Amino acid sequence: MAEEEFGIRGGEVAIPLPENTDAGVYFLGRIRTPWTRREQCPKNARESDAVCTIEVDPRYAAGLQGVESCSHLLVLYWMDRSRRDLVLQAPRHYGEVLGTFALRSPARPNPIAVSVVRLQEVAANLLSVVGLDCLDGTPLIDIKPYFASTDSVPDAVVGWRKATKD
Amino acid sequence: MAEEEFGIRGGEVAIPLPENTDAGVYFLGRIRTPWTRREQCPKNARESDAVCTIEVDPRYAAGLQGVESCSHLLVLYWMDRSRRDLVLQAPRHYGEVLGTFALRSPARPNPIAVSVVRLQEVAANLLSVVGLDCLDGTPLIDIKPYFASTDSVPDAVVGWRKATKD
Repeated sequence: MAEEEFGIRGGEVAIPLPENTDAGVYFLGRIRTPWTRREQCPKNARESDAVCTIEVDPRYAAGLQGVESCSHLLVLYWMDRSRRDLVLQAPRHYGEVLGTFALRSPARPNPIAVSVVRLQEVAANLLSVVGLDCLDGTPLIDIKPYFASTDSVPDAVVGWRKATKD
Repeated sequence: MAEEEFGIRGGEVAIPLPENTDAGVYFLGRIRTPWTRREQCPKNARESDAVCTIEVDPRYAAGLQGVESCSHLLVLYWMDRSRRDLVLQAPRHYGEVLGTFALRSPARPNPIAVSVVRLQEVAANLLSVVGLDCLDGTPLIDIKPYFASTDSVPDAVVGWRKATKD
């Protein structure tokens, strides 16, 4: 009963988190998307070609110099509406219980998402990008150039997904 | 003079950071690598085929279930020995001043690195991986499955790098 209240499904396991965190992050801006409720968000980012806007806090805007020359970026953001204590999860669309580190679920000890986006435009402190699937207002943590030489692995395999989905 | 003491090179710009951070991260373990000083680290991860070990704190080890089925992972770690206030940087190996968000430099407001690694083995709470270039003892922040469908963009371009390097 109490477990259900806290959103635990059968087979899921929560752990006690440490009393204190070890380091602090700054929110560097906000991400503007068309989605205000979780059920509206695309299941994964390639399902949508919606153009989203990354609003970088003017304090950090000088850090965008050179970003306009990148075709793709890594965007890190803080999924601030998820519980952080699950180690085993039962995603609704798979039959299986899996470890948090085998999933891209927002529920994780450090709720930081990594998304690869295609950059459309940089205008002052605003970036127009395609490839996000997060809620409107999500806090921005970082932007990095995407280097195909180190970041692209076309033949990577996620075995559990193959077994459950193909 | 003072600037040089704090490691600022010509053209680099530091900003005042906010007084407080906005959210906290837990260190989930440590990364064991052969490199104990920054100058020993490979310039980028594909330069080295050293096998590194990710030690996941036993508290979180149940979260590894299913990870063994992944050929590649995203590893997020905390680069705790870098200044966080640079928005413009002059990387030693390029002639140009570039924004922090156009660089993978460890000096950034949130010193979180994202590396793509090839998984060799999972044994209890230890992961053997190839593709890291960080210092020994670096704090682990997250592990995620690498999905080629969303994470791999073989033809991505970083224009400033092309101009300065090719």
